[in-house]
Amino acid sequence: MQIAVLLYDRFTALDAIGPFDTLGRLSGAEVVFVSERPGPVRTDSGALALVADRGLDELTRPDIVVVPGGPHPELEMENPAVVDWLRAVDATSTWTTSVCTGSLLLAAAGLLKGRRATSHWLYLDRLTAFGAEPTGERVVYDGKYVTAAGVSSGIDMGLGLLGRIAGDEYAQTVQLMTEYDPQPPYDAGSPDKAPAEIVARLRAVSPLDGR
Amino acid sequence: MQIAVLLYDRFTALDAIGPFDTLGRLSGAEVVFVSERPGPVRTDSGALALVADRGLDELTRPDIVVVPGGPHPELEMENPAVVDWLRAVDATSTWTTSVCTGSLLLAAAGLLKGRRATSHWLYLDRLTAFGAEPTGERVVYDGKYVTAAGVSSGIDMGLGLLGRIAGDEYAQTVQLMTEYDPQPPYDAGSPDKAPAEIVARLRAVSPLDGR
Repeated sequence: MQIAVLLYDRFTALDAIGPFDTLGRLSGAEVVFVSERPGPVRTDSGALALVADRGLDELTRPDIVVVPGGPHPELEMENPAVVDWLRAVDATSTWTTSVCTGSLLLAAAGLLKGRRATSHWLYLDRLTAFGAEPTGERVVYDGKYVTAAGVSSGIDMGLGLLGRIAGDEYAQTVQLMTEYDPQPPYDAGSPDKAPAEIVARLRAVSPLDGR
Repeated sequence: MQIAVLLYDRFTALDAIGPFDTLGRLSGAEVVFVSERPGPVRTDSGALALVADRGLDELTRPDIVVVPGGPHPELEMENPAVVDWLRAVDATSTWTTSVCTGSLLLAAAGLLKGRRATSHWLYLDRLTAFGAEPTGERVVYDGKYVTAAGVSSGIDMGLGLLGRIAGDEYAQTVQLMTEYDPQPPYDAGSPDKAPAEIVARLRAVSPLDGR
């Protein structure tokens, strides 16, 4: 079982690490971080680099594909190397997954046409242009396609998918080892719950908001 | 404002990335990943490397120190380079923090003597040997020392600390941008909630459990 995590310039670290430290704990699985060119790949703020150990051409048949998001998905949505690779590996994958705006990369590759899917709440509407049906759920399963909402939702996706693959008890064991018993200090994690003025301010400044 | 995130061989990625993608979003803050030697540092499973951009000797006065954990804290607890650095930067830090077994590194540096603190649930009792008072809370504040429980709790710590530093509204904004509205597929994230047989099995195999 091979799990490929795609890295690209200015991705969001937690998008990739949430699934990595949950789903990636699958017994016997090999997790491989890949990017167009192997080597360090900088996150959105530039303050950190994760190392992609292999290039896209070196990984042709991963069982699971994980695509993180970032604040500038349009750059990769128009990058043929990435989009073609997604299309190619999806032909044989067991699960094709994304976190946050990663779903826009899957959509740009034509993989979400006619499918229910989600994304970061600020980018959700943009899925429509690619024939996907946006939903407000945190983790959306449609066949082998699993898309999660913004950034931290990859943890919920990772544990849920782990349960489907390895059973509830295994996933619960990983949940306990990662002590995932969330106690957020505020209840502001979705546009329905956050103070309206914060939601409005973010909608106003988001460079990619489709509205 | 400078935030130093310590990396060392076999740390757990999510321990570092939880605070990075919450607290690290502090406006105007410079986040620096440091390790004994600059360069790629492998996580616990070996499947991923994060790059430490600077060595410990290059970072002498960070305002905030973040120490992630990992399954083999004893290696760093006995590493004078790391322990001495922690003691030195703590002398001028505004906040000294840890996630998971990272608190054992702080404890080994003598920084938690007489203080309330937490750690990964499997390692909690080990704090006592260093004069700290273990608590079962998810995030523990004692003066400028903030310790969080296992792995994923660094997200809760990061948002909570962000609120104390930059105000509730700022922290809520980051919570909304990271869409931290957790919906774990199971309720097994703490030893009180997980099935008893899973808890017992993990206690039996944990190489470092003090009991």
